[in-house]
Amino acid sequence: MKKREKRIAGNLLAGLACAALAHSALADDAADARALIKKAQGTDLGWQTVESLTTEIGPRLAGSEAEARARAWAVKRLKALGFANVHVEPFTLEGWHRGEISVRVGAPYPQRLVATALGRSVGTPVGGITAPVVRFTTLKDLKDAPIGSLKGKIAFVDEIMTRTQEGMGYGVAVQKRAAGPSIAAERGALALIIRSAGTDYHRNAHTGALRYDDAQPRIPAAALSNNDADQLARLLALKPDIPLTLNMSSKRIGQVPSGNVVGEIPGSDYPDEVVLLGAHLDSWDEGTGAIDDGTGVAIVTTAAKLVAEHGQPKRTIRVVLFGAEEPGLIGAKAYVKAHKDEMGKIIMVSESDFGTGRVWRMNTGIAKEDEAKADAILHVLRPLGVLPGKREASGGSDVSVLSAAGAPAVSFTQNGWTYFDLHHTPDDTLDKVNKDDLNQNIAVYAAFAWMAANAQGGFHPPAHPSSEE
Amino acid sequence: MKKREKRIAGNLLAGLACAALAHSALADDAADARALIKKAQGTDLGWQTVESLTTEIGPRLAGSEAEARARAWAVKRLKALGFANVHVEPFTLEGWHRGEISVRVGAPYPQRLVATALGRSVGTPVGGITAPVVRFTTLKDLKDAPIGSLKGKIAFVDEIMTRTQEGMGYGVAVQKRAAGPSIAAERGALALIIRSAGTDYHRNAHTGALRYDDAQPRIPAAALSNNDADQLARLLALKPDIPLTLNMSSKRIGQVPSGNVVGEIPGSDYPDEVVLLGAHLDSWDEGTGAIDDGTGVAIVTTAAKLVAEHGQPKRTIRVVLFGAEEPGLIGAKAYVKAHKDEMGKIIMVSESDFGTGRVWRMNTGIAKEDEAKADAILHVLRPLGVLPGKREASGGSDVSVLSAAGAPAVSFTQNGWTYFDLHHTPDDTLDKVNKDDLNQNIAVYAAFAWMAANAQGGFHPPAHPSSEE
Repeated sequence: MKKREKRIAGNLLAGLACAALAHSALADDAADARALIKKAQGTDLGWQTVESLTTEIGPRLAGSEAEARARAWAVKRLKALGFANVHVEPFTLEGWHRGEISVRVGAPYPQRLVATALGRSVGTPVGGITAPVVRFTTLKDLKDAPIGSLKGKIAFVDEIMTRTQEGMGYGVAVQKRAAGPSIAAERGALALIIRSAGTDYHRNAHTGALRYDDAQPRIPAAALSNNDADQLARLLALKPDIPLTLNMSSKRIGQVPSGNVVGEIPGSDYPDEVVLLGAHLDSWDEGTGAIDDGTGVAIVTTAAKLVAEHGQPKRTIRVVLFGAEEPGLIGAKAYVKAHKDEMGKIIMVSESDFGTGRVWRMNTGIAKEDEAKADAILHVLRPLGVLPGKREASGGSDVSVLSAAGAPAVSFTQNGWTYFDLHHTPDDTLDKVNKDDLNQNIAVYAAFAWMAANAQGGFHPPAHPSSEE
Repeated sequence: MKKREKRIAGNLLAGLACAALAHSALADDAADARALIKKAQGTDLGWQTVESLTTEIGPRLAGSEAEARARAWAVKRLKALGFANVHVEPFTLEGWHRGEISVRVGAPYPQRLVATALGRSVGTPVGGITAPVVRFTTLKDLKDAPIGSLKGKIAFVDEIMTRTQEGMGYGVAVQKRAAGPSIAAERGALALIIRSAGTDYHRNAHTGALRYDDAQPRIPAAALSNNDADQLARLLALKPDIPLTLNMSSKRIGQVPSGNVVGEIPGSDYPDEVVLLGAHLDSWDEGTGAIDDGTGVAIVTTAAKLVAEHGQPKRTIRVVLFGAEEPGLIGAKAYVKAHKDEMGKIIMVSESDFGTGRVWRMNTGIAKEDEAKADAILHVLRPLGVLPGKREASGGSDVSVLSAAGAPAVSFTQNGWTYFDLHHTPDDTLDKVNKDDLNQNIAVYAAFAWMAANAQGGFHPPAHPSSEE
């Protein structure tokens, strides 16, 4: 054998040895992940976490005193669970008070309707706004109304939300809530009433943030429960010029403090490389934020804790419990701003923010050359009912800001069939959490976190970062 | 043949002829009833009636201006449907204003709970009552507490209501609501909080009347939603002396007007003998009173109207839409008082007051010698899924006052599996009405009314009147 041939043969052998080692390491990681899945399926820790947060804090509006108590709760809990580097990363946002709301239909059918102020809405003048209502069955119909045509009127966008497994009906329905107020204002409306972006019929109105366009006057906006939207539509059919009185004392209250709570399971080999698991600590103020997002907090915290009990991962697993997600991913934006120099080291992000619906699909937003590693993770998750998904993923609500800034991401699609029955309503309470389903989610995140943190070579961003799936 | 034998034979022949005639009349009545069932199953009138009442009037608290509008609505509607002798029979009752309510848990877990004032409760002093809470898992435990032992405390009766097909769980659960306030007062409590007498978990508290014992101080009383009762129980487990603030502006407002609305299908042969079909026009003020008792109004009104369209019954069918059922059968008591001389002519009563759950059983509270006639009615109803029931019946809510005063009664037991998810909550709205089930009820009442009004010899009270089944 010539020298050059010898060298080639040597390299080849080393390569084979490496592959064999890698294969064996992957097999070990998969075995560890399967052990984590088993452990997760029997844990009480997830349930205890969501029970504790929703009971001891309850509603925790972004920027409120209750959200501050939630941060203190999270710091205490992460420390008690043995997380390292537990700390709060503060930021501020424009605060908002819900105040009181009353919606009344006038003569000849006087009655009260159940409604909730949209998050961040301005209030009405004292005494309210009384005006005839103009009903639009879709947001598009409102957009098609001529500029100025709603002068002296209250606009009512009565568009229904379609129930779907993935929740894609929400993506459509949320437009009337977010963009509707300024579209109505541009057409001269005094206020906007919408049918809730929600699928239930339990007399609960669904709140959620609006987004004012700076070019338009800020008008008050509120959502009716589905039951009440039906009622108003029937009343308008009986008497098209029936007056409606909207009285809301909502207001913006200037800059208020919020923060993201961070805790870590430090990595053994590459401690500065990070698998980031997200959830959000704030909730709307109507329910106790059980499924949005107490369960997410429970899922990622418990998954990371189970990993730490099992053994030290090669990379750091960082849990980030974001503040102020609901008013517009404000905590996530602050996080990216504060961590811009570290972004290249965040090799994976994923967020749990969809209740306890079982995970049924795994989408990946990673470089093509890393897909085999993601497939190896999926293979371990398959017995949990997880299907292969799209080669596109934002990672979830807050962390979509990170993936948009270049972080590789995995999204675990959950069953959302009943999620929008509860989302942003008073009915988002602990009793809605199914422990078996919660533990399936914890199993998914624990196995995923372990394998992602140990994956040889890590993960790299896709050529074209996906913003939303 | 001797003269005496001739006479006996003649009598015998006449008797046989009578029996044959009766048999043929019964067969005709059954055929008519079957035609009515068919017609009822295809009608839109029941749906239109409950839609109109719940939309145009909505909530209609006993003694309120809205209940007065409901009476005007009923008079207009009964006249439009061709009922005879349509009129209001006025009475008065002690009125009540709900006012506003706020229930807040104090430090270290400050949060608001969803609650509703119990009907007819007094309010708190301005600023509310703040006191520690003593929790009882059953009403019996509250009763077992020593007199005076709750001085300076708020009592919390956390007894759960059991879901049953017949609704018998309500009979138990309602005790804590009706009798609980005075039992708590006797033990020195400042106020009473109860877990709702209801089976849902949709963050709706269930209102309903309390009954003060004149020997005890009147203390304010409210019901928490099931979700919030769970929450309070968890908070008390964490901190037994946590304070609760109850603030209620409910008040009694002196005598106010109400009334029963009456309409008739006059009988051809015995117009002064009456088959009385009842329902109640008032509702609690939180929902729009669709299942309690808009559907009852729709069922008995439509059934009687279908009978009138089919042909004239031998006896009068009288529809009575009672006022002020909810605060304690006040309209029914006024009715019995006003009609005491006529009671012997009311040969049958039955009320529909349990939503649109399908009728699955027929109970009878009639004389033993009339049971064959009731069995003949049941035979016609069997294809609608109606089972034979007990030989005991009050006839239903309001008309139980009439059966207690001696009127023969039939009770049609409805499926109540989901009824107490909605009963007395904001969620009692039109969308809960199932039209097919509504029409099954209309079919039952139409067939029953026809056959009862035509039954040879009518019906007589049982030897021992049954008060409640």
